Amino acid sequence: MTADNARPKIKLFSLNSNRELAEKISKAVGVPLSKSTVKKFSDDEIKISVDESIRGTEVYVIQSISDPVNTNLMELLIMVDALRRASAGSINVVIPYYGYSRADRKARSREPITAKLLSSFLEMDGVDRVITLDLHADQIQGFFDIPVDHLRAARLLASFFEANHGKNDLVIISPDHASVSRARTIAELLNAPIAIIDNRSPEDATTIPEAVIGDVEGKRAIIVDDMIDTAIKTQIASETLKNNGAKEIYALATHAIFSGDAVKRLEEAPIEKVIVTDSIKLKDDRKFDKLEVVSVDQLFGEAIKLIHNQQSVGKLFGR
Amino acid sequence: MTADNARPKIKLFSLNSNRELAEKISKAVGVPLSKSTVKKFSDDEIKISVDESIRGTEVYVIQSISDPVNTNLMELLIMVDALRRASAGSINVVIPYYGYSRADRKARSREPITAKLLSSFLEMDGVDRVITLDLHADQIQGFFDIPVDHLRAARLLASFFEANHGKNDLVIISPDHASVSRARTIAELLNAPIAIIDNRSPEDATTIPEAVIGDVEGKRAIIVDDMIDTAIKTQIASETLKNNGAKEIYALATHAIFSGDAVKRLEEAPIEKVIVTDSIKLKDDRKFDKLEVVSVDQLFGEAIKLIHNQQSVGKLFGR
Amino acid sequence: MTADNARPKIKLFSLNSNRELAEKISKAVGVPLSKSTVKKFSDDEIKISVDESIRGTEVYVIQSISDPVNTNLMELLIMVDALRRASAGSINVVIPYYGYSRADRKARSREPITAKLLSSFLEMDGVDRVITLDLHADQIQGFFDIPVDHLRAARLLASFFEANHGKNDLVIISPDHASVSRARTIAELLNAPIAIIDNRSPEDATTIPEAVIGDVEGKRAIIVDDMIDTAIKTQIASETLKNNGAKEIYALATHAIFSGDAVKRLEEAPIEKVIVTDSIKLKDDRKFDKLEVVSVDQLFGEAIKLIHNQQSVGKLFGR
Amino acid sequence: MTADNARPKIKLFSLNSNRELAEKISKAVGVPLSKSTVKKFSDDEIKISVDESIRGTEVYVIQSISDPVNTNLMELLIMVDALRRASAGSINVVIPYYGYSRADRKARSREPITAKLLSSFLEMDGVDRVITLDLHADQIQGFFDIPVDHLRAARLLASFFEANHGKNDLVIISPDHASVSRARTIAELLNAPIAIIDNRSPEDATTIPEAVIGDVEGKRAIIVDDMIDTAIKTQIASETLKNNGAKEIYALATHAIFSGDAVKRLEEAPIEKVIVTDSIKLKDDRKFDKLEVVSVDQLFGEAIKLIHNQQSVGKLFGR
Amino acid sequence: MTADNARPKIKLFSLNSNRELAEKISKAVGVPLSKSTVKKFSDDEIKISVDESIRGTEVYVIQSISDPVNTNLMELLIMVDALRRASAGSINVVIPYYGYSRADRKARSREPITAKLLSSFLEMDGVDRVITLDLHADQIQGFFDIPVDHLRAARLLASFFEANHGKNDLVIISPDHASVSRARTIAELLNAPIAIIDNRSPEDATTIPEAVIGDVEGKRAIIVDDMIDTAIKTQIASETLKNNGAKEIYALATHAIFSGDAVKRLEEAPIEKVIVTDSIKLKDDRKFDKLEVVSVDQLFGEAIKLIHNQQSVGKLFGR
Amino acid sequence: MTADNARPKIKLFSLNSNRELAEKISKAVGVPLSKSTVKKFSDDEIKISVDESIRGTEVYVIQSISDPVNTNLMELLIMVDALRRASAGSINVVIPYYGYSRADRKARSREPITAKLLSSFLEMDGVDRVITLDLHADQIQGFFDIPVDHLRAARLLASFFEANHGKNDLVIISPDHASVSRARTIAELLNAPIAIIDNRSPEDATTIPEAVIGDVEGKRAIIVDDMIDTAIKTQIASETLKNNGAKEIYALATHAIFSGDAVKRLEEAPIEKVIVTDSIKLKDDRKFDKLEVVSVDQLFGEAIKLIHNQQSVGKLFGR
Repeated sequence: MTADNARPKIKLFSLNSNRELAEKISKAVGVPLSKSTVKKFSDDEIKISVDESIRGTEVYVIQSISDPVNTNLMELLIMVDALRRASAGSINVVIPYYGYSRADRKARSREPITAKLLSSFLEMDGVDRVITLDLHADQIQGFFDIPVDHLRAARLLASFFEANHGKNDLVIISPDHASVSRARTIAELLNAPIAIIDNRSPEDATTIPEAVIGDVEGKRAIIVDDMIDTAIKTQIASETLKNNGAKEIYALATHAIFSGDAVKRLEEAPIEKVIVTDSIKLKDDRKFDKLEVVSVDQLFGEAIKLIHNQQSVGKLFGR
Repeated sequence: MTADNARPKIKLFSLNSNRELAEKISKAVGVPLSKSTVKKFSDDEIKISVDESIRGTEVYVIQSISDPVNTNLMELLIMVDALRRASAGSINVVIPYYGYSRADRKARSREPITAKLLSSFLEMDGVDRVITLDLHADQIQGFFDIPVDHLRAARLLASFFEANHGKNDLVIISPDHASVSRARTIAELLNAPIAIIDNRSPEDATTIPEAVIGDVEGKRAIIVDDMIDTAIKTQIASETLKNNGAKEIYALATHAIFSGDAVKRLEEAPIEKVIVTDSIKLKDDRKFDKLEVVSVDQLFGEAIKLIHNQQSVGKLFGR
Repeated sequence: MTADNARPKIKLFSLNSNRELAEKISKAVGVPLSKSTVKKFSDDEIKISVDESIRGTEVYVIQSISDPVNTNLMELLIMVDALRRASAGSINVVIPYYGYSRADRKARSREPITAKLLSSFLEMDGVDRVITLDLHADQIQGFFDIPVDHLRAARLLASFFEANHGKNDLVIISPDHASVSRARTIAELLNAPIAIIDNRSPEDATTIPEAVIGDVEGKRAIIVDDMIDTAIKTQIASETLKNNGAKEIYALATHAIFSGDAVKRLEEAPIEKVIVTDSIKLKDDRKFDKLEVVSVDQLFGEAIKLIHNQQSVGKLFGR
Repeated sequence: MTADNARPKIKLFSLNSNRELAEKISKAVGVPLSKSTVKKFSDDEIKISVDESIRGTEVYVIQSISDPVNTNLMELLIMVDALRRASAGSINVVIPYYGYSRADRKARSREPITAKLLSSFLEMDGVDRVITLDLHADQIQGFFDIPVDHLRAARLLASFFEANHGKNDLVIISPDHASVSRARTIAELLNAPIAIIDNRSPEDATTIPEAVIGDVEGKRAIIVDDMIDTAIKTQIASETLKNNGAKEIYALATHAIFSGDAVKRLEEAPIEKVIVTDSIKLKDDRKFDKLEVVSVDQLFGEAIKLIHNQQSVGKLFGR
Repeated sequence: MTADNARPKIKLFSLNSNRELAEKISKAVGVPLSKSTVKKFSDDEIKISVDESIRGTEVYVIQSISDPVNTNLMELLIMVDALRRASAGSINVVIPYYGYSRADRKARSREPITAKLLSSFLEMDGVDRVITLDLHADQIQGFFDIPVDHLRAARLLASFFEANHGKNDLVIISPDHASVSRARTIAELLNAPIAIIDNRSPEDATTIPEAVIGDVEGKRAIIVDDMIDTAIKTQIASETLKNNGAKEIYALATHAIFSGDAVKRLEEAPIEKVIVTDSIKLKDDRKFDKLEVVSVDQLFGEAIKLIHNQQSVGKLFGR
Repeated sequence: MTADNARPKIKLFSLNSNRELAEKISKAVGVPLSKSTVKKFSDDEIKISVDESIRGTEVYVIQSISDPVNTNLMELLIMVDALRRASAGSINVVIPYYGYSRADRKARSREPITAKLLSSFLEMDGVDRVITLDLHADQIQGFFDIPVDHLRAARLLASFFEANHGKNDLVIISPDHASVSRARTIAELLNAPIAIIDNRSPEDATTIPEAVIGDVEGKRAIIVDDMIDTAIKTQIASETLKNNGAKEIYALATHAIFSGDAVKRLEEAPIEKVIVTDSIKLKDDRKFDKLEVVSVDQLFGEAIKLIHNQQSVGKLFGR
């Protein structure tokens, strides 16, 4: 990495949620990971120390707020506290998966908005910039007053799909009413039409909706979502598509939460391939034959380099 | 209004954006509007004075952030400053139409998030609670850290439609990909299916998309949106529906911005009726034959009474 | 509980860390626990809803920040967010055990001060008052700018000891250099002298220090600490005391963390009885024959009643 | 402009209130104006985008808060939001005319202090420094906690007057009781005595006060004020001076608001010349024969260069 | 004092700057002073304890920020910290003399604005309302975002003068260019003309200016100022007036700082009477024959009663 | 001092509390003290001006918060306000003695926590970093959210003692229960055992406790404390040690407050030498024969150099 001499030194730290991705990002940036120690006590208390001087440097901390979300979040918040007190020049947090992002509004009376709470904690803790990927809602950027560089995996995923599975006879599927824009974006990249599963409350549903709005018969359908959590929604969508005559079914998502019986559901569903990124570290028991993983290492690496060299990252916002 | 004796006194103020609605809300609450003076100088500077003591009282200020949005916003912010400095017990702002709500995210690099800016100004100014209606995105609630009572006009609009136009053969139309959830809500209230106009960038478009995803032929279609601004999107949707065989077309929206040539477009479009609320004051030259207006006075009045009596307003969040 | 009519209604909520104590406190106050729902997803995300209106009420949330500390902390913070957004009149958090309280200073360069981070989160979240028990350092009160009612279990524990084990021939032991003041407090209540284990870095130590500063021979020694975590320090102290001729040895502490092999260590150590409070819920596998538990239910119950009636809680600060 | 290599890059932006002055300042600094787009919708909503990368640069935004003040203010606030979110290195706002500056105190109960509100908005929005000219009251600097470089036009105006109209037989006139210090400053620069119009509430007055405190007979009188708004005060002062025997009358002010019938009043008043700066853009219908305009371009240009080169701007504070 | 039952209890505290006035205010309000202890250590450290429960009460703390200003300021700030931590219902500070109020702007580069610093400290400390008297500049109200009740002594002083010295042949004198408005206010109350001492930098001056702008010959002149500090300005004004033929000279001011040789100067100056209020406690060696003191006890007492009963204090703002 | 060219310029300022130490630190850093003017008016008001441009520079202000603490504190806070408004690049405050540090917790109900108040004032004022020495409690670091470089004099004092008085037969004495850790630190550096004075409330005590916990007979005892204020505690400890057979007694402390009769007490006490640092300026009447002063100039000088060069100061935290 050719650094501008007048720029402060750059340091990268990884916490525990996704060290593999952090190491790949570190290679992409061309800067080794710096040393820190994270101890965990048996009551889950976290103790962190930063093991090299970071006075005046531009620090990037890489941490997904993924399972276990509360512990990974606290690791990040405590690390930032340590960095701030140790006089970091600037603190940039790289959050490939921003947990709690579905708690972004009050659906009913007397609910919290936890995604906002997280952003308030990060700002109050002294974070200078957030670099993240495919937030559940774009509006979460507005939960912050600091700069948020919001990267998009759509182009990466679409290219991967096209290179590996071609682009004939495609139809892009939104698995519920809230995700149509996301499907539209992939549809444009793959030059395909869209259709929608008319599914009222997908995560809780147990019956398969009959209706697909739009035409899927004889087509290769790609179910597009920002994340696959329990995979119930994906499974239901795939069966509906099957019932409506789709000839091949794929699932495409940025974040592979795969909680509960997700893996079993995806394996059993009438789906050819499940294509995700490595924004969340996949434990071994969550890998399966149908799964294809696209790394976001170059995306984040490029963003960090552009930011450090004070260049626009606008092109990485593209879809 | 029978007030709890231990509760502080309640006072209602109206600013200039929508004094008619304020007077109707005042009647619904059973509390007359209090006196304040708003002067405007020829360079647009606003001078406000509150003309009765509000020390210790529970104040509600009613103001839509509608055309001219900057002036109406500043009126509200200056009024709140005056109320805070005059020792109001609590300051509740009633914002039937929350302007700038479409600027709720960065669509491209180097854009502002003005909806968040407004919420920051209101909080910093000392507002204790916001009562508003059909925000463009639910996530805007999370832009605030203070309580937001987010009322919904869907039930009101659906009931009005059913009472005046029946519920036979209906299909509910989302005029673009981003609004499908809103259509789904009305569809559930009227027990109808939905369809979607496959329109990429509706406000800028000049050609009529051919595609409707879903079945509209021979049906009575209701185009549902949160607001009608230039009406280009509504017009395009109506013509696409017409081309696809809809037998009657209605437009249903909460906020009637009606800017530019909106009225002309709506008059000329193949639409039977345009049904909106009075969240924004309709100037005389923006009224036209097809227009039907449902008042939100009772909705806001009820909310204010419940809040003052410290009861849940949850039922008003319902759709 | 006879409430002052002009005072706002009081509501008590329990979260998941120590529901048994919450129920006992609820009885002591004479107010039933209100309803809330805490769901946990398989990636550890927490979803909370408050199931009754709390608009304008004086709310108390009871939660120890104990094992698993990060999850219990997030439960508390998310609950407070929900309460604030739901227009609670005031939010009081009752934290019988304040986790992370040992991370109250930078012992070395580039360490965080996590106890301060917690207090910042609680304040930012809108908490109006903290009611807690035997903080690891009194200075943690100063981490807050809001009122902190800092209760003390010393009097309760000393009375219990005297009632059950008498007060003859006692010597009060500080197990390290940092805890002498705490020992001095118990010593005054039981009218006994003190002695100190000359132990440099107790938690990490594996060898037993020879030195006891002060006279323990032939005496009944009570090792006093604010918390027992791994119990290594307690075990070492007890063996040192034994080697120096103490005739009976007791351990007395407010917070029973009992992490790792603590129970095994305490069972094997030359200790008669281990006396703790129920500030932390004791799982079944952490109960053992030597253990005696004193409830802090009346202490907290009394504090809540005094606060609600706007009376001084000064007498509960006493030792 | 020869820039120090270690200093961040400088970028200048103009908004819409006074693009002519911005261009002249840009020339004075030797740095071209950067590109941004400001769109205005028909309901007055503003949409801004910054059209070149400003990551890490030292940004100056030039905008007078002049007619229409609310719109120009919002333009500035929204622009700053965009710049902050786009990671500007520092944000400096250049406000040649700071509107609402007369609302700097509560003259009566229950009035707002809008000038303070503006300063709070600017600070909250992330502005790092304000560069402004002849505030209505010096104390407005204290409304800010960030640095304010408060430039003065007095020297510029006095020099202009002397060069064009000589300095014989002058008397400097304060048109009311509140502006005597300002008159004193000009008097010292032109080595002249002062006199005061004994006018109680000048803006509202309709009758001409008889009294002039001090001697004006046979003298050339210069009425000095910070701004000329409706010109009622200036007109009355000029007629009083005429009645008291002044032989020539001039009006000198920094900010030419010229609202309402100001131009007509100034044309008809017994005034030789009206001398103002271009801090506010003069619309064509507000130009008239008697008017002489002094540009503040060099003053602001010099300030920006000194600030960028981290030199003292103290000499520009001089009168 | 007949208190509204639903209102919280009221408590008044006095600190050390002006206990006599506090006791008179306490009588005027009809509420005895509550108990607190202020100890001072020999290195000037202050230790305060509040000696009765103030949980939930409406507290008023009376303290002038007068000589020694730093110590009196810290007493106030520390007291407020104690009150906030002890759960006061609301904290109102009564500051008869607001020290540092002349440091309200940057007169030169690189000066502080200490009056703003004080207001920031008070707000940050949790003060809910400030009640003060005759600030050096009205704009200081805008340094606060909390309510400021700014009382005026003008009417009190004018009435006192008229009752004791009549209103024949009066002329009201502004001793410098900055205070003309203040003179104008008294002039209106006493129905008299004004005149101005043409004095450039009064506090530093050592020579007596010849010029008086306006007519004083044969008149009884009242020199009006907000405060008399070193009295140099007053002395110079009096001698100038004498030289210009004034037949009697009085000095009238709200705040009697009387620092340095002020008393000697006032005794020797050609002044009949010096009329001040008791906003600052006059030490015995600062009392002298010519001095007449008007108490502001009723003014503050009335303000406190109105505030407690949530009535407008607007009438006390009058001049 | 060889400065990194890319680093901002460094400037050092001294205020009035300890100008001698500031000059020595200035020499140690190799940077002369910059010019500022501090005037004090007779009512104790402070007026500061910074007499050279500091725009963009890294500023260090050296000031102990020592007798008179309130005035010295205000000097510091006002200076920081001036620096911030004058666009300092960063503001570092060097506080050799942090006054009010004993007010770090509520010992009883309704007490303030003044040490926290100070830290809040400093942060709010715009301080970027605090460099201080031997805080009364380590937890005070957590009162700040900004970086605190907390230096330690233990190593310096221990080396001095060993060099001048040898290390034979030593025992290190904690004069009360709260200071045992501090004694332990010195004990480790001098390889000596410890003992404790069993003294309940040392500052108030008038009788000499009989008990010493630990063995002192025939030994050379060093009483270790962070500060010597009234010296009552030191005097009592020395007499107790004498009574228990110590053969030589020394007192060792970082901060020499020496208030009230401290000097007399120390002179009369059975103490050989009193060893302190120059963190507080010793007035001439507080110097006496037994006194030995170790300068902390190199310690602070080294810290400033490391900070300016963005290197770790970790080694200076060592004991």
